[in-house]
Amino acid sequence: MSPLKIHYPNGQPYHYNENDFTKSKKKKSHDYSNRGMSLEKELNLTNKQYLLENIAVIHKKPTPIQVVKVDYPKREAAKITEAYYRRSSTTDYNGVYKGYYLDFEAKETKNKTSFPLNNFHEHQINHMKQSTEHGGICFTILRFTTLDEIYLLRPDFLFEWWNQQFKKNGRKSIPLKAIKKENYLIEYGFNPRIPYLKIVDQLIEEIKEK
Amino acid sequence: MSPLKIHYPNGQPYHYNENDFTKSKKKKSHDYSNRGMSLEKELNLTNKQYLLENIAVIHKKPTPIQVVKVDYPKREAAKITEAYYRRSSTTDYNGVYKGYYLDFEAKETKNKTSFPLNNFHEHQINHMKQSTEHGGICFTILRFTTLDEIYLLRPDFLFEWWNQQFKKNGRKSIPLKAIKKENYLIEYGFNPRIPYLKIVDQLIEEIKEK
Repeated sequence: MSPLKIHYPNGQPYHYNENDFTKSKKKKSHDYSNRGMSLEKELNLTNKQYLLENIAVIHKKPTPIQVVKVDYPKREAAKITEAYYRRSSTTDYNGVYKGYYLDFEAKETKNKTSFPLNNFHEHQINHMKQSTEHGGICFTILRFTTLDEIYLLRPDFLFEWWNQQFKKNGRKSIPLKAIKKENYLIEYGFNPRIPYLKIVDQLIEEIKEK
Repeated sequence: MSPLKIHYPNGQPYHYNENDFTKSKKKKSHDYSNRGMSLEKELNLTNKQYLLENIAVIHKKPTPIQVVKVDYPKREAAKITEAYYRRSSTTDYNGVYKGYYLDFEAKETKNKTSFPLNNFHEHQINHMKQSTEHGGICFTILRFTTLDEIYLLRPDFLFEWWNQQFKKNGRKSIPLKAIKKENYLIEYGFNPRIPYLKIVDQLIEEIKEK
């Protein structure tokens, strides 16, 4: 029935499907920019690469889930049948690099001119403040998805902006202009995709100079 | 019908139950030893106290769970209706103390004379080896529940015992005698319950002397 019969070397027939070609055309872009992958996924790939090259040990923490009911079927894995998402009391990523404790949060926004501060929770900010006090290097990786730009925010910058929102006439979002001026643009790479440790190296240099 | 009618100030009747008294008798011990609380719970309380006193920022990572189905009822929290436990690729606890990255695993055994090595998974050992290489301080907190004794295992000690099991005539468990000889007994405290950072201070001194 099919106009063309092609077989793979393993003898399996190849099924022609027009969609395959349409899809592959769409994927042809060869720049390294974000191709619809979530920031979380890209950071996980990045951290995997850092681990593989023995550069750093950084992991995303699992999402906290409160388990209410579990079934224990015979000879099968325990099945959770009722559970709820809980709010994390820390940031999402942490680990060790060059002897330093790293701790960061990853955030995305579709906004084009500013980053709304309500993307952060107070406990995340407090966690970063506390970790910084004990010698940890804390920061935020921020993606403006529409602009396809990723920034690494300095901790002092974030804390300052976080605090000003509670003052009279405080702004509820950080203008992109201010972010650009005092922080770091992360250029996409091939592998790792988001080479944020290059920027962390600069933060480490600053700490050493103090 | 009841021989004695007592009411609480709020008007609710008090139901006499002999078990209540039996239970409270059992709880009378005033030493600081483990009163049936899980090691995890005691470590969480310990870490909470360390955080409260601004001594260190250490958290237990959430248990990794793979979510398969979620219901989104109107006006209510998202309800997970099918999910499974996954194996963690790291240890359970990490954080920052005196500028150092800490990373540890907590284990319990009912054994009285040795600790079975199959309580560890290879990926946990690898994770600790990698983190140590990058300057992290990794260790294990081990409770012999029957003996009610808690030890902090040095990383080099654990790695050595882990590796020997794969050799000819290798032992599958670490004798308590060996644990006692080369590691640290943690004495229970009131608050924090398991003051393991006192031992970590000794590990830090060793690192500094190198």
